[in-house]
Amino acid sequence: MSTVPLKQVNDLINVPQKTPIVQLLLTGNELMTGDIVDSNSALMAELFKDIGLSIQRKVTVADDLAMLVNEITYMTSISDILIINGGLGPTIDDLTAQALALAIDVELIQHPQALTHLTNWCEQRGTELNTPNLKQTILPQGCNIIANKNGSAVGFSVRFQNCDIYCTPGVPHELKTMLNEEIIPAIANKLPSTSNTDITRLQVFGLGESSLQKMIDEQLPDWPTEIELGFRAGMPLLEVKLTTTTKKGAILKAPWLKKLTHTLGDHLIAEINGKPKTMAEHLLDLLQQDGLKITTAESCTGGLIASKLTEVSGSSMCFEAGFVTYSNAMKTAMIDVSPTILATNGAVSEAVVIAMAKGALLKSKADIAIAVSGIAGPNGGSEDKPVGTVWLAWGSLNDLQTQCLLLPYKRQQFQQFVTAVGLDLLRRYQQKSTSVPNYVSERAFPKPH
Amino acid sequence: MSTVPLKQVNDLINVPQKTPIVQLLLTGNELMTGDIVDSNSALMAELFKDIGLSIQRKVTVADDLAMLVNEITYMTSISDILIINGGLGPTIDDLTAQALALAIDVELIQHPQALTHLTNWCEQRGTELNTPNLKQTILPQGCNIIANKNGSAVGFSVRFQNCDIYCTPGVPHELKTMLNEEIIPAIANKLPSTSNTDITRLQVFGLGESSLQKMIDEQLPDWPTEIELGFRAGMPLLEVKLTTTTKKGAILKAPWLKKLTHTLGDHLIAEINGKPKTMAEHLLDLLQQDGLKITTAESCTGGLIASKLTEVSGSSMCFEAGFVTYSNAMKTAMIDVSPTILATNGAVSEAVVIAMAKGALLKSKADIAIAVSGIAGPNGGSEDKPVGTVWLAWGSLNDLQTQCLLLPYKRQQFQQFVTAVGLDLLRRYQQKSTSVPNYVSERAFPKPH
Repeated sequence: MSTVPLKQVNDLINVPQKTPIVQLLLTGNELMTGDIVDSNSALMAELFKDIGLSIQRKVTVADDLAMLVNEITYMTSISDILIINGGLGPTIDDLTAQALALAIDVELIQHPQALTHLTNWCEQRGTELNTPNLKQTILPQGCNIIANKNGSAVGFSVRFQNCDIYCTPGVPHELKTMLNEEIIPAIANKLPSTSNTDITRLQVFGLGESSLQKMIDEQLPDWPTEIELGFRAGMPLLEVKLTTTTKKGAILKAPWLKKLTHTLGDHLIAEINGKPKTMAEHLLDLLQQDGLKITTAESCTGGLIASKLTEVSGSSMCFEAGFVTYSNAMKTAMIDVSPTILATNGAVSEAVVIAMAKGALLKSKADIAIAVSGIAGPNGGSEDKPVGTVWLAWGSLNDLQTQCLLLPYKRQQFQQFVTAVGLDLLRRYQQKSTSVPNYVSERAFPKPH
Repeated sequence: MSTVPLKQVNDLINVPQKTPIVQLLLTGNELMTGDIVDSNSALMAELFKDIGLSIQRKVTVADDLAMLVNEITYMTSISDILIINGGLGPTIDDLTAQALALAIDVELIQHPQALTHLTNWCEQRGTELNTPNLKQTILPQGCNIIANKNGSAVGFSVRFQNCDIYCTPGVPHELKTMLNEEIIPAIANKLPSTSNTDITRLQVFGLGESSLQKMIDEQLPDWPTEIELGFRAGMPLLEVKLTTTTKKGAILKAPWLKKLTHTLGDHLIAEINGKPKTMAEHLLDLLQQDGLKITTAESCTGGLIASKLTEVSGSSMCFEAGFVTYSNAMKTAMIDVSPTILATNGAVSEAVVIAMAKGALLKSKADIAIAVSGIAGPNGGSEDKPVGTVWLAWGSLNDLQTQCLLLPYKRQQFQQFVTAVGLDLLRRYQQKSTSVPNYVSERAFPKPH
């Protein structure tokens, strides 16, 4: 064990480290016209997150010299790291080098290292080194070259107004390699090794954003400010994020995560590690553990539940057959729903979804089923059964459960939400959950059975 | 006819109209962390382009009050129209109203019109109007309410520093409706009515962007510069856009649109008027015209084709039954595919998709069918039938056609592309098309039958 002078240790513990402010400047006409969606900044955010940094602000402008110079001048004055993305290409609308030279007031010169890279690049490909390409070697005096394994344009960096500026290519795979192999390691090297940012993400279903907020306000009123709470409403899943950046936050997190988990109850599907799982994946995991097979009998969702299951690789272990019985006649022909039950109760009824589930189970020999029948709209509603009404039946042959919901969504959202509810009811069933979910707050109508 | 003083007419003709400067301010922690990719700004760019405006600059920041106030103050000083997107929700990290009130120095008050909207919204859904929700009615004094058909949070607008500020929801479908029905028409109304911008949009399928470019370069080399050609690659449809902004362009358009239509041939699905139709909608239109019913027999797409059909309102007129036969046993049990055919040819084979289509037609009594069987991957491939192989059969009982493709897509994209191909083959079948589509350039393997 090496000894460390006392003062230095104290410094590390007591002096708060200033986290560098990172900003992005994205340039490109195509980013302004709606022709492409910017995926580069999400990639950058992910990679910065890995080294404990977050992007504070990003600005996107077209390829306009005056605007670029303005933004560079201002952004370097308010940040510690500025990533400029795009505008390194050979055409006249690629202006990054020129704008940077103007902003930091240096000459543009031909950079020998950039010329060597470009010459090798062309040689290896047997292409001619033409005048437009040569533009990519004319860079601000005094800048450092950043290798580009995948393209003809090198990156470059320079320090100005106490800000490290990195100029990067707009082509996603060139950017990715340059960030991973050059820029992120270089930045990480300069950081103190004690970043404390810690993030926990939870997948939640069956609660809206405002109901969740209310639940936390009421049941956990003393939530500590050291744990930042964030929500992201997805369709269908809600994501809850707990972020701590201080030691105190880190210590408080475990007990408060436990309290939150308890408060969320069955609404909590899982903690997210890596790529979030879909609802179908969670269900298939549970089914595979128990060696069970599932079948679907769908009317109003028209195959969407089956397609969500089969979207998952390996779903054939647990799913063999799905029945899309859209008409009454086909409910009878495919899964033996009695015409009398249909005539007596109507297609959107408890009796019919029970018969659908039973029929699908018998025909497919699966262990559990989900059956749905509802009115997706915009037409087909009545006073008794308005648009948005849906009956669900789920479970095994001898243990079928049912629920009726009235959902306030338009057709496609209705179908997606019913699919999510169906998968969630089966998840709860497999987890032997006893609580009754309330998917639409107090919207259930008629009352659940 | 009213007379107009000569000077005024001259003004209109000769004095260039100042085009308003439009900027976007996007807010949301999730936009900074890489958790979501911003698609809203592309949508806004598209809609502004339709009224002849472009977005000059956009700034994205996290949910941080001080930063938001700063940006609003600065951006309103350099633009004529500022769209603020996000931060209208009920939770504590939704700060747009508060930031705007601070930036323009007015009080936050409960807005009666917003309260009425929220009360009606909750009433219609049978939900309780809770405290977090009420936050969505506390808005800057003097602002105008913008209706939100699809959500609980109204939008709002205010004029400050000669800039029109519009605050809009971050949820994409709420934003889209609000822009289309409220904001874009309001802005268009204020613009001089002399814009000559005219846009024609075409839906194309079965051609990649570069094949289309090559086709136009080769077959229409004299394409006039007055007609700007743009492409937007979607999954699965490609959109081709012809934009003219001059009188000469407007005159040239009709004959060149005709030439382009001829060049595209069967790849052209339709000209877009209003909301683009889906491939399922186009097919269902054709089926309804002929009074025909369709059925589906799906293995590798697992219900996705059926779900795309039933997504369309009124699809019950033409669709009664779909069979998701994921295992061999269920292909036999549900639609009578002979076990011998399965054993001899394997599930991914021409003989099996023919048998599936026939079985589905007989069981459902539909007029036409689509049957698909393939290897979606990532596992299950062999040297003979690699991952990405798919057989399709389509048509009526006495006129079944088949094709085999090898698609270079990952599982979910594979399923989506096969679904699109299936719907497109049926469209061509109903249109009695004679040309052979080439969905994957030269990648088809083995050769189509």
